[in-house]
Amino acid sequence: MKIYVGVDLGGTNTKIGILNGNFEILAESSIKTLSQQGPEDTFTRIWEKIKEMFKELNLNEDNIEGIGLGIPGPVVNNSIVKIAANFSWGNNFNAKEVFERISKKQVIVENDVRLITIGEHQFGAAKNYSNAIVIPIGTGISAGIIVNNMILTGRDGAAGEFGHVSLLNKGIKCGCGLSDCLELNCSARGILRIADEVLDNTKDIEFSSIDNLEAYHIFNLYNQGNETAKKIVDIFCDNLSKGIGMLINIINPEVIVLAGGVSKSADIIIEGIKKHLHKYALGISLDNLNILKCKLGDKAGILGSSSLIINKKKGN
Amino acid sequence: MKIYVGVDLGGTNTKIGILNGNFEILAESSIKTLSQQGPEDTFTRIWEKIKEMFKELNLNEDNIEGIGLGIPGPVVNNSIVKIAANFSWGNNFNAKEVFERISKKQVIVENDVRLITIGEHQFGAAKNYSNAIVIPIGTGISAGIIVNNMILTGRDGAAGEFGHVSLLNKGIKCGCGLSDCLELNCSARGILRIADEVLDNTKDIEFSSIDNLEAYHIFNLYNQGNETAKKIVDIFCDNLSKGIGMLINIINPEVIVLAGGVSKSADIIIEGIKKHLHKYALGISLDNLNILKCKLGDKAGILGSSSLIINKKKGN
Repeated sequence: MKIYVGVDLGGTNTKIGILNGNFEILAESSIKTLSQQGPEDTFTRIWEKIKEMFKELNLNEDNIEGIGLGIPGPVVNNSIVKIAANFSWGNNFNAKEVFERISKKQVIVENDVRLITIGEHQFGAAKNYSNAIVIPIGTGISAGIIVNNMILTGRDGAAGEFGHVSLLNKGIKCGCGLSDCLELNCSARGILRIADEVLDNTKDIEFSSIDNLEAYHIFNLYNQGNETAKKIVDIFCDNLSKGIGMLINIINPEVIVLAGGVSKSADIIIEGIKKHLHKYALGISLDNLNILKCKLGDKAGILGSSSLIINKKKGN
Repeated sequence: MKIYVGVDLGGTNTKIGILNGNFEILAESSIKTLSQQGPEDTFTRIWEKIKEMFKELNLNEDNIEGIGLGIPGPVVNNSIVKIAANFSWGNNFNAKEVFERISKKQVIVENDVRLITIGEHQFGAAKNYSNAIVIPIGTGISAGIIVNNMILTGRDGAAGEFGHVSLLNKGIKCGCGLSDCLELNCSARGILRIADEVLDNTKDIEFSSIDNLEAYHIFNLYNQGNETAKKIVDIFCDNLSKGIGMLINIINPEVIVLAGGVSKSADIIIEGIKKHLHKYALGISLDNLNILKCKLGDKAGILGSSSLIINKKKGN
């Protein structure tokens, strides 16, 4: 029996899935990434967890055909992470080499957003679309772009970084080194920045009773009809529409899929986008466009990373 | 002997090239488009001109294997122009059907900017690059995007329209129906708009002596060291860098090629872009990026359109 492993390495948690060649998830689990302990430690613990999962499945890890690994940051040649995004593992970190040495299995590495995109394209909301853009909205925002059924990687593994397009005209510095990046107003953090600005000018009892405001609080209050929350969400959706309109004018896709943590509130966000998008995208590209919520949720990463290795092994 | 024809239909002039299968131009010519006389008239005159050119070459038009036709506007299925951009020939105009009926030859239609891009990619400055963006700057601005050696078309033939991304924050209406489109400050017309603004606040004798200011006047004065011209060109290049930075963050290409009428001043513009681009594009995508001037000039359109039909006939 041929078995494949998908690993979705995140800043806080790492998800692990074990799949057969029919893309059926036999087991899934999660461990803390604890990247500050160094890559050797993290990848050794991931590999120990995989072996433990195999034991529980009464399977031998000799059956592993390969491992697909998703990781944040620009990935080139399915092996090297060019810039340390969320980890202090240094630039040009060869994730493939380290994990192959520890696991003695073939490892294919890809950027995490692109794996979510591959997952949604092969199994989820973007299935049957040849030209799709998947947008995970989490701490940051970026896009996985599928053109003619192929994922866009770019020369340096940096395609899809539309969150760092300068759109805000406010003179705010972004962590990436540029200024006024869309992401600053258009992510889980971005909606909090908008909330700060709105709440500076608006007294709202329901907001002031919250200790540590997070994105989900805002969407909860929105659902309860809170007017301040409606205003914040409206500004957020206007900014997001600016970014999506830009992607549409450049790529002219068939479908936009919202994913990531914030996509739990995708219905609200899609409504907001439909209100604002016509201001930023050419009519011809909007007439037949679908805007959808992701289907795979948390599983997109492990499905995408394992499909990378399964397709490679099957020669697809 | 197999002969191919490339036609580059422009708002004012239509260029015609006659090529052999080795992409050698045997003859080229140009006629007025006169689109207001209707498509039947225009295509009949183009076909008469082609026959005349064949006579001069002592060739029989029976040798024509096919015709490649470049035309402004979003083209789908290599046949239909979805929106009338520069002509009053109506939406969903079937250029292939009309020209095939008149010429009795196979016709393949594509958007003019994409054909310039295909030309520069196959024979010009973008040759040997798998991921390239060609930007013709003329009356308007848009981009031809090559990814993995394939041209991006988009679902509705509208990919590459980065000139209509809302970037200016000035509340100016664009002819496309949107507002604040980059093109308004970033084309042959755009540089005149910038000049208007600058000259409102600056008395400049050398400028006030020009009757009908055109883009080339500004670049000429720039070359003569005129400070006002330098200011105008600097603002133009800053805006252009904003647009190119956006394309780079989304596509992460290997090369950017400047083409179109304004590219006669490409050396000046490239210098300006290099000054401003670092503000708008992620460093990782800039490290290995080349910014080049087009090589084919006016011939890009007929080379691109004929290569479309030559490659089709050869099964490439």
